[in-house]
Amino acid sequence: MSNITIKGLALELNLSAATVSRALSDSYEISAATKQRVWDLAKKLNYEPNPSASTLRSHKSKTLAVIIPEIANNFFSQAINGIEEISRQHGYHVLIYQTHDNSETEAAFIKSLLSGRVDGVLISVSSETDNNDHFTELNKNIHVVFFDRTLEDIDAIKITTDDYESAYIATEHLIECGCKKIGYLSALNNLSAGKKRLSGYADALASHHVVYDKNLVINCDNNENQNYSHIKDLLSQNKPDGIISAIEELVLPCYKICQDLHINIPHDLKIVSFSNLKTAPFLNPSLTTITQPAFEIGQAAATLLLKLLNKKQVDTNEAVILKSTLIKRASTGC
Amino acid sequence: MSNITIKGLALELNLSAATVSRALSDSYEISAATKQRVWDLAKKLNYEPNPSASTLRSHKSKTLAVIIPEIANNFFSQAINGIEEISRQHGYHVLIYQTHDNSETEAAFIKSLLSGRVDGVLISVSSETDNNDHFTELNKNIHVVFFDRTLEDIDAIKITTDDYESAYIATEHLIECGCKKIGYLSALNNLSAGKKRLSGYADALASHHVVYDKNLVINCDNNENQNYSHIKDLLSQNKPDGIISAIEELVLPCYKICQDLHINIPHDLKIVSFSNLKTAPFLNPSLTTITQPAFEIGQAAATLLLKLLNKKQVDTNEAVILKSTLIKRASTGC
Repeated sequence: MSNITIKGLALELNLSAATVSRALSDSYEISAATKQRVWDLAKKLNYEPNPSASTLRSHKSKTLAVIIPEIANNFFSQAINGIEEISRQHGYHVLIYQTHDNSETEAAFIKSLLSGRVDGVLISVSSETDNNDHFTELNKNIHVVFFDRTLEDIDAIKITTDDYESAYIATEHLIECGCKKIGYLSALNNLSAGKKRLSGYADALASHHVVYDKNLVINCDNNENQNYSHIKDLLSQNKPDGIISAIEELVLPCYKICQDLHINIPHDLKIVSFSNLKTAPFLNPSLTTITQPAFEIGQAAATLLLKLLNKKQVDTNEAVILKSTLIKRASTGC
Repeated sequence: MSNITIKGLALELNLSAATVSRALSDSYEISAATKQRVWDLAKKLNYEPNPSASTLRSHKSKTLAVIIPEIANNFFSQAINGIEEISRQHGYHVLIYQTHDNSETEAAFIKSLLSGRVDGVLISVSSETDNNDHFTELNKNIHVVFFDRTLEDIDAIKITTDDYESAYIATEHLIECGCKKIGYLSALNNLSAGKKRLSGYADALASHHVVYDKNLVINCDNNENQNYSHIKDLLSQNKPDGIISAIEELVLPCYKICQDLHINIPHDLKIVSFSNLKTAPFLNPSLTTITQPAFEIGQAAATLLLKLLNKKQVDTNEAVILKSTLIKRASTGC
């Protein structure tokens, strides 16, 4: 480690130590010209911040928490990689919690974070959570950024994807492939993402003069066995010719049921799913997906959180929406 | 929260507060009979420990760190679920770090953990790590348990699977299916798991009088493009009739290359891989796997670490080996 300190830099530049410190942390309180002078000298002299001293001085833990429903979901593992990349560039550790979509677990984690264990929180809300209660206290005390799964009526920075448009385009794709009876596996019904996906499906049907049939819409939750049995009933009794799955977790059960009931995909049933599965191109048949920009969502969320922490000017009600992509494969067969 | 304190329990039982505290934490210093008396009263009076007071008193963070190569690997996400289950039962938070198989990142994490941020560490070593250097200091200061990916010559608790036997059985399975020219995609070559898997393969060949051909063994590392090109050369030039992949990450590239080169699995090439992929049964063709008891490995590792933290008697050089399972599917076609 070099011996150059903030005091040393300040002396050399004829600035106060506080100004140098703020310039190094890219504070908006310091002019661009001054920041450039400080950065140039810091680079020239090979200045390295002393992490433990800086933690003591700022009372910061230099740790971010990421609260997500599941690690074993490709969207979230990719989003975490994006969060990590940005966090590491800024010298932050990332602490990961899984809620397993349980609202009580989520509330307990949040309570434990209020003690100052972390400086900021990135959260993708549990699908069970249907109100803002346990976020209110958190939002008052710690900087929070929501990503992907958010609540509709909370004032906070939110990074999401174009859920409505994606579901609309996916439904339209099935209609263009000749489907006339399109089932919908609904999930995340309390959350903004779930509501928008369902609306996109319903509106695409309406635009193409296909009647919305509530018997073709299955509400799924965290009960795997119950979801399986509802999907099986749908496929065996209502015999849809197309399926849109609102989450990745419901696709493998669909494939399993089709195997068991000898339903040929895509001949008898075409399937498209919101999914970031790496194996999607190698499934039997390969799966048409709405693939979310997971890594980029993670990067954007972490970037905005770090701006908040570094006291840069940010619209604390900013809503960033990144585009998802429909990738057509054999499961929709056209 | 109840108002019963350790002092209250001690008074009632005519014991010292220190004895009650040790009994509650299941210390081996207290007799089984005394522990039972304390637990019975604690239960009767609905005693709940005050978590923040207990942290202050014990100077413990009540946090465990898990250091792993990748979250986006089904083995590790399942192992973390096992670790979490045990940790939560004991009121511990789990902090997850990814090394992306980079030894320097791993060393940097470990250095940061020496500050007392966590009480204990569960680690699955990066495949790049080829010596004990950065573990020596850690092992002296914090309780550490190694799981799955360990170094051979380190004195510590290790939870692994039967790597040698699994690779042996998988190789034998390919021989029984008629393969005469079995390629091996080698990985984790610095680590105990990698060495044992390769030995299992080599010994099974020898037992069946098949000559070990070094041209059929590809050494893979973290360079995805290079691995891809080496595997492509192997499949197009050496034309093996069987492949064993030492890690899950190399299987999708194999499937892609077979698609591109019109190599039919399992007719032209039979494939088996160490893998905990949930999609294995739904791949085209479904993948024969050596499936590790990932969740159970996580549980066992966390259980032993918590015993160490709670000062229970543990053999600090204990080696637990859990059995993996060969699951035969269409990719080996017999």
